[in-house]
Amino acid sequence: MPMDATTLPDVSGLSVGVLGGTGDQGRGLAYRLARAGQRVVIGSRAASRGEAAAAQLSNLPGVPAGVLSGGDNAAACATDIVVVAVPWEGHAELLTGLRDALAGRIVVDCVNPLGFDKQGAYPLSVPEGSAAQQAAALLPASRVCAAFHHVSAVLLVDPHAERMELDVLVLGDDREATGLVQALAGRIDGMRGVYAGRLRNAGQVEALTANLIAVNRRYSAHAGIRLTDV
Amino acid sequence: MPMDATTLPDVSGLSVGVLGGTGDQGRGLAYRLARAGQRVVIGSRAASRGEAAAAQLSNLPGVPAGVLSGGDNAAACATDIVVVAVPWEGHAELLTGLRDALAGRIVVDCVNPLGFDKQGAYPLSVPEGSAAQQAAALLPASRVCAAFHHVSAVLLVDPHAERMELDVLVLGDDREATGLVQALAGRIDGMRGVYAGRLRNAGQVEALTANLIAVNRRYSAHAGIRLTDV
Repeated sequence: MPMDATTLPDVSGLSVGVLGGTGDQGRGLAYRLARAGQRVVIGSRAASRGEAAAAQLSNLPGVPAGVLSGGDNAAACATDIVVVAVPWEGHAELLTGLRDALAGRIVVDCVNPLGFDKQGAYPLSVPEGSAAQQAAALLPASRVCAAFHHVSAVLLVDPHAERMELDVLVLGDDREATGLVQALAGRIDGMRGVYAGRLRNAGQVEALTANLIAVNRRYSAHAGIRLTDV
Repeated sequence: MPMDATTLPDVSGLSVGVLGGTGDQGRGLAYRLARAGQRVVIGSRAASRGEAAAAQLSNLPGVPAGVLSGGDNAAACATDIVVVAVPWEGHAELLTGLRDALAGRIVVDCVNPLGFDKQGAYPLSVPEGSAAQQAAALLPASRVCAAFHHVSAVLLVDPHAERMELDVLVLGDDREATGLVQALAGRIDGMRGVYAGRLRNAGQVEALTANLIAVNRRYSAHAGIRLTDV
């Protein structure tokens, strides 16, 4: 059947934790979700940094009072949906340390394992196949999905950007979980969350970020993706 | 600078060969390019099969008289731009045999190395990194690009589909060649050819076809990609 976002579950009451919420992508997602009215907890290794990021984002236009808070990573894990937006370099170590805290949670990995040299970005080889599959291997008791790879951090944190005109590709093997993540993406104005395959097909979605970086360099853009005919 | 298709070269006078032009993707591309007025030569191992495909496509709506012809693979290689649309299984062997015929040509690889099982499509591991990089390794005297991975064969050959609303991601290390391939994609109504990185970033573009297949299954669609903000 055709894509019909109205059939997705209501996630407006769910809380969202953001691990790596002090980085560009994490801050941007936290801001957009909070602006959509979602309750968001920004996590950081040091609770004070998570709190500072939450205070700063709370002052940006459009954020309802009281929806954003910050704390340490454990605080961010005590939520319904936990977004992993940390640098690839610390990915495995962070998740290993949070294995128990993330048990039973929906974990949304949006990490792109990329290298950079003078010719631009390129995908790194990941033994598990992708960052998301690494997360699934390290978090056997969590419901791991992958999403939000291609959203421009620059646009996310730009308070003048009213809408994010792009589709978020959502991957995962747990249909209920991917539906919730699709619905979460759909809470952000202009975004759709589109199911785009099982976790074994996450690697190329992560790696495609290298192509979007090439597009951005060539055309001075903040490229995103729309799926046509969906 | 922003994407500006008017700065791309005029390729209306260039001829296009299609290797594997009797398969679904090859036939579809040959039809669309011929319909745009491009001179197209459909190649096949047996010249009679190439000729038969050309005769059949020439009868479809919108194809100007005389632009489509068919022959053996060598005939398709005697063109300005040669599109490789063969099954992955025969990719290396075919290109090895055509090395001399393809020397000096612009070669556009649009092959997706995919496997299929009951859970759908998944990317195959390619020692060279991608089909396009394999082509570049096998054809050191050719100018290898990659493009046309995500165009739906069903839509391409549907004579009632007036426009192909999607962007073709064009990859390659030769800027003049990628510009020509971008312009070629732009000859098809609704399509844009967008530069999307060097050949080392072709693997994930090929593999992303597995995700589009998952999208198509879930939503009964013929999904393509548009880049936003470009």
